[in-house]
Amino acid sequence: MGKYNVAIVGAAGAVGREMLSIVQERGLPYNELRLLEKEDGTFTTEDGVEYEAIEATPEVFEDIDIALFSAGSAASKKLAPEAAKRGTVVVDNSSAFRMDPEIPLVVPEVNPEDINNHKGIIANPNCSTIQMVGALKPIYDQVGIKRIVVSTYQAVSGSGKAAMDELLEQSKSILEGKEAKAEVYPHQIAFNALPHIDIFFDDGYTKEEMKMVNETKKIMGDDSIKVTATTVRIPVLIGHAESVNLELGAELEVKEAKELLDAAEGVRVVDNPEELVYPMQNQIEEIDDILVGRIRKDNTIDAGLNLWIVANNLRKGAALNTVQIAEKLIENNAL
Amino acid sequence: MGKYNVAIVGAAGAVGREMLSIVQERGLPYNELRLLEKEDGTFTTEDGVEYEAIEATPEVFEDIDIALFSAGSAASKKLAPEAAKRGTVVVDNSSAFRMDPEIPLVVPEVNPEDINNHKGIIANPNCSTIQMVGALKPIYDQVGIKRIVVSTYQAVSGSGKAAMDELLEQSKSILEGKEAKAEVYPHQIAFNALPHIDIFFDDGYTKEEMKMVNETKKIMGDDSIKVTATTVRIPVLIGHAESVNLELGAELEVKEAKELLDAAEGVRVVDNPEELVYPMQNQIEEIDDILVGRIRKDNTIDAGLNLWIVANNLRKGAALNTVQIAEKLIENNAL
Repeated sequence: MGKYNVAIVGAAGAVGREMLSIVQERGLPYNELRLLEKEDGTFTTEDGVEYEAIEATPEVFEDIDIALFSAGSAASKKLAPEAAKRGTVVVDNSSAFRMDPEIPLVVPEVNPEDINNHKGIIANPNCSTIQMVGALKPIYDQVGIKRIVVSTYQAVSGSGKAAMDELLEQSKSILEGKEAKAEVYPHQIAFNALPHIDIFFDDGYTKEEMKMVNETKKIMGDDSIKVTATTVRIPVLIGHAESVNLELGAELEVKEAKELLDAAEGVRVVDNPEELVYPMQNQIEEIDDILVGRIRKDNTIDAGLNLWIVANNLRKGAALNTVQIAEKLIENNAL
Repeated sequence: MGKYNVAIVGAAGAVGREMLSIVQERGLPYNELRLLEKEDGTFTTEDGVEYEAIEATPEVFEDIDIALFSAGSAASKKLAPEAAKRGTVVVDNSSAFRMDPEIPLVVPEVNPEDINNHKGIIANPNCSTIQMVGALKPIYDQVGIKRIVVSTYQAVSGSGKAAMDELLEQSKSILEGKEAKAEVYPHQIAFNALPHIDIFFDDGYTKEEMKMVNETKKIMGDDSIKVTATTVRIPVLIGHAESVNLELGAELEVKEAKELLDAAEGVRVVDNPEELVYPMQNQIEEIDDILVGRIRKDNTIDAGLNLWIVANNLRKGAALNTVQIAEKLIENNAL
C-alpha cells in the first residue's frame, strides 16, 4: 500500500477536528496531512496540540490525492470541483453534491460498491441518515423495508462548534437565573427542543427531513422505500438518537433482528431493558459503532418493528464515515 | 352554584402545587380547601406563600366533596376508596385506576359524558396521553384515525420535583466539569436522552408506552385505534412534546386540519414555519392549551399526517385536567 497526500478542508471546525484525529488514530497512510481553512492560521485541539492550517485555494490541491471536505456547502461547491479537476478525489461532508445523480453517496457498510463509480467527488451523507441506513441495512437485506417513520433527537454539535458553545452558555445563564441569548439557533436550545433543523420547504418539511427521505433511497439504491421524518434538535452536545418505526417486507422476530444487527459491521446491539441498558447519547463520545436498542415488535401492522438508534454524529455521522470512504478508495485502488 | 369542600392530596408535590394554584386561579367554588400530605407540616410555594398541610387519613375525607389526588399510585390505592366510601368524589391523577373498566378515564374536551358514570372515583389520564388525545379528537371526529405512531420528548417534571432538581444539579455539575450524580433516574439526564419512562414489560415496551396505547383507546372509546409508542425523557423541565404520525380514515388537507384544531376547545395551532414559529416546551410554562404545529401531509401512505404536539405536563397533562374534571362534576350536578 502506497502513501498519499491527504488534505482536510475546514480542519478547525467540529467535524474537521474529528477528521484530523480519526485519520491519525486509524492510521490512514499519508505522506503529508495538509490542513486547510478559510485563511492561514493556527488552531489548538482539545488535547492541547497546536496545528497550522493554510488557506484553501484551488492551487493547494495540485499534489493532494484525497481531500476530506467539511467546510460547508458554499466552500464545497467552489473548491471541490477545483480539487477534482487537479486529480484529487474529494470526499465531501456537505450537502452540496449528495443528490447529484452523477455523484456517489456512500456509507461504506451499506453501498461500498458505489465508491468505484466516482468522477472525482464522493458525497458523505447527512449524519442522521448515515446512522439510520447503517442500522437498517442488515434488516433490509433480510426481509426488505417498505416504510420508515422516524423522529430524531439530534445533538447541537450537528450545527458546529458555535452551537455547542451556545448550549453550554445558555445552560449556564439559565442556571444563574439570567436570560439565555440565542444566536446560532433562532430560539433557546438549552432545556428546550426545537422541531426545526435546516430550512423549511413550502410543504412544511425541513431540508433535514427531506435529506433523510431522499438520501436513504439513494444509499439503499431502492426508490420504493417510503420514509417520513420529523427532525428535532435537543439539548445534547454529541450524539444523535432516532426513534424508528418500520414496516418490513416480512415478519422478523426481535431475536432475529438482534442477531442480524449484531452480526453487521459497525453496528452494535445495546438492548437489555432488564438491566436498564439501552443506547444513550452521553455514552457515545468515544464510540464509532451505531448502537441499536429498544428493539420491539410493533403489532399495529404486519411485520412492524420499533428501534432506538444512537450514533456519534461527529464520528460515524460525519468524520469517521469520510475517513472510511477514503480507506475504501485506497483498498479498491479507486483513486 | 353551591360551594364545596375540596381536598388536594399530595399538595406539596410538583403537580399538587399546580392543583393548588389552578383551583384558585380558575375560581373553583370551594368553602374549604384542605391540603393533605403524608404528614402534618408546612410547605412554601414559589411565590413565597406558606401553606399548612395535614396528614391524609381516611377520616379527613368525611366532609370533603371533591378530592384531587396526586400522591402516587400506592397512596391512591389506599386512600381513594376510603374517600369514596365517605361520599367524596375522587379525581385521581395516579395510574392506579385508569384501566379499571368500572372507572371513567376523562379528558373533559374528549369524553366529558363519561364523568357522569363515576362510582366515586374518576381517573385522570397519563400526561402524555392527555395532550395527544386532546389534539387528535377533532381530527378523529372528522375523518377517523386508524393508526398512531408516536415518539415523545418528555420533561423531567413528569417524575416530580426531585427530578427537576436533579436535572438542574446535574447540569450545574457538568458545566463545572464535575461528575453528574444520578439518583431519581438510573442514568444521567442532563445533556442526555433516556428512552425509558416507567418500568419495562417483557415485550420490551415500557409502562408509559402502554399507557399511551391503552388509555387512548379507552378515552376515545374506540378499541380499533392502533397505537405504537416510544417514550423518551429529555433534559427539559416542563412541557412534553410529541412527534405524531397518523394514518387517518380519510384524506385531510393541512388547511382543514388547522381549521379543525383551531376550532377545538383547549387546542391552539402554532404553525408558521416561514416565521420559524412552532410549539416549543420553553414557552409552555404559563399555557393551558395544547399546542399543535409542524402539521404536514405524510404522503408515504394514504391519508397520512404528521404533527408536533406540545403541552404543559403539570397543567393540562395533570393538575389542570383534574380541576377541569371537578368543574364538569359540579356543572353536571354529578357529585
